[in-house]
Amino acid sequence: MRKIQTSPYHLGENAAVELQKWQTRGDPIAKSKSDYKRLLAEHVDRLSALQHLLYASNRHALLLIFQAMDAAGKDGAIAHVMSGVNPQGCQVFSYKHPSAVELQHDFLWRTTRDLPERGRIGIFNRSYYEEVLITRVHPELLEAECLPERAETDEALWQGRYRSIRHLERHLFENGTRVVKFFLHLSKEEQRKRFLARIDEPEKNWKFSMADIEERRHWDEYMRAYEQCLGATSTHHAPWYIVPADDKRDARLIISQVIVETLERLQMAYPAVSAERRKELKAIRKRLVDK
Amino acid sequence: MRKIQTSPYHLGENAAVELQKWQTRGDPIAKSKSDYKRLLAEHVDRLSALQHLLYASNRHALLLIFQAMDAAGKDGAIAHVMSGVNPQGCQVFSYKHPSAVELQHDFLWRTTRDLPERGRIGIFNRSYYEEVLITRVHPELLEAECLPERAETDEALWQGRYRSIRHLERHLFENGTRVVKFFLHLSKEEQRKRFLARIDEPEKNWKFSMADIEERRHWDEYMRAYEQCLGATSTHHAPWYIVPADDKRDARLIISQVIVETLERLQMAYPAVSAERRKELKAIRKRLVDK
Repeated sequence: MRKIQTSPYHLGENAAVELQKWQTRGDPIAKSKSDYKRLLAEHVDRLSALQHLLYASNRHALLLIFQAMDAAGKDGAIAHVMSGVNPQGCQVFSYKHPSAVELQHDFLWRTTRDLPERGRIGIFNRSYYEEVLITRVHPELLEAECLPERAETDEALWQGRYRSIRHLERHLFENGTRVVKFFLHLSKEEQRKRFLARIDEPEKNWKFSMADIEERRHWDEYMRAYEQCLGATSTHHAPWYIVPADDKRDARLIISQVIVETLERLQMAYPAVSAERRKELKAIRKRLVDK
Repeated sequence: MRKIQTSPYHLGENAAVELQKWQTRGDPIAKSKSDYKRLLAEHVDRLSALQHLLYASNRHALLLIFQAMDAAGKDGAIAHVMSGVNPQGCQVFSYKHPSAVELQHDFLWRTTRDLPERGRIGIFNRSYYEEVLITRVHPELLEAECLPERAETDEALWQGRYRSIRHLERHLFENGTRVVKFFLHLSKEEQRKRFLARIDEPEKNWKFSMADIEERRHWDEYMRAYEQCLGATSTHHAPWYIVPADDKRDARLIISQVIVETLERLQMAYPAVSAERRKELKAIRKRLVDK
């Protein structure tokens, strides 16, 4: 298995982030389409085996969070990387506009319900991070959240949310859930090309809406919100990876490699069978054979 | 309205707690049964009005947590204090043994689902605090929780849980939920009397089980677990009240007074009606009258 270095994409703790300094297209990893297919298949096989072990050892859960601008390839990455995993051990949740009931609760409430059980992989396609991204770019969204009177500045509100997120993720870590977060880093030019493709290719039309173009006008504000967010919430317990996303295939190879490495670092083992239990199994076997 | 002092029962931040120094029976508050009834009725009326305002202003929620040894009067306190409140604005949740699904999640997961919406009062009859009380007295319960490998000592585990709880309650505070926690402080002798009554009075038999007697044998360990827990989790954001519980009536008066004071401290107001809206209402009124 050819090893892909993941450290260049790993964001350290307390790092000041300038996204302009992070590549949206790195040195090519896959040498050809067939090379990509072979590499991804290796990763998917390995991931499938590790997920089986995760399930059997039943001590840890894995939570993968995907955040990105539109058309960065979140859905495709999830589909291709996780396709080999037993669906019983893996659940994907996508978060769009919060419901009326969800707005009546604190901003971490709605995703808590969907956290993965021990032994499972949970995937959040967007997440509670939207509450410090789209909501930071469009603070008028806070109106609907009916927050209590705010004597503080808005900056204090965002810092409070970053802190709440850090605390939550530390709590999850200590209780066995590994949280890994991917920011798919797309260039504005590549987004333009993909939007054009969504308009030009009829079978991609359903993926395009006018709202996407509206949000594109806030690109620079989104980049600033991401910089603040990534810098404030990348921790030892729950690291961010900034994945160059202009090349979809390489992005998938990096993501799958990170997931494999994360699972390999866990202390996992199939439950040990005691001598007594083995004896019991032997006796049962004999009865099945004798019959 | 006769004012009951609640400060003697309020536990400050970072306080070392020795429960022996806290009364289980304080100076009598109610002078007679009729005096108790009158005082409680006043509190319940006030509470009902405040709950209505809480609901209308829709900015805050109130979470009341009740913890105590068996027969300390949690159920009775909840019934008598909250009886005047519109049930639409108030929900009670009782937590017994966690389910198989709940055990597959972190220890704060199962109660999160039940957190009160803005404008409501939520009551936890027992709570996530059981995870540092009964579980601390019976650490064998941890086995079923399938926690990841623990290199650390057990002490680190409990300190980690206290920290998770403090962080959660701070997060709730910052997002508009006021958390108030009551420890109903009962003497071992008064528990004995109440258990005897549960055996001697046929209509109370259903409330008694052999398991209650078993737990009574761990009294001193429970007191130590409570002392650790109360000291580590009483904060400015989410205070504990240690309520003398040998006298049920006085306990209810203290509890209801604390709840009333907590709600009175909130900045609540009926939503303001704009001049435009008032004009509109006037026009509608006219049409209704003219018809």
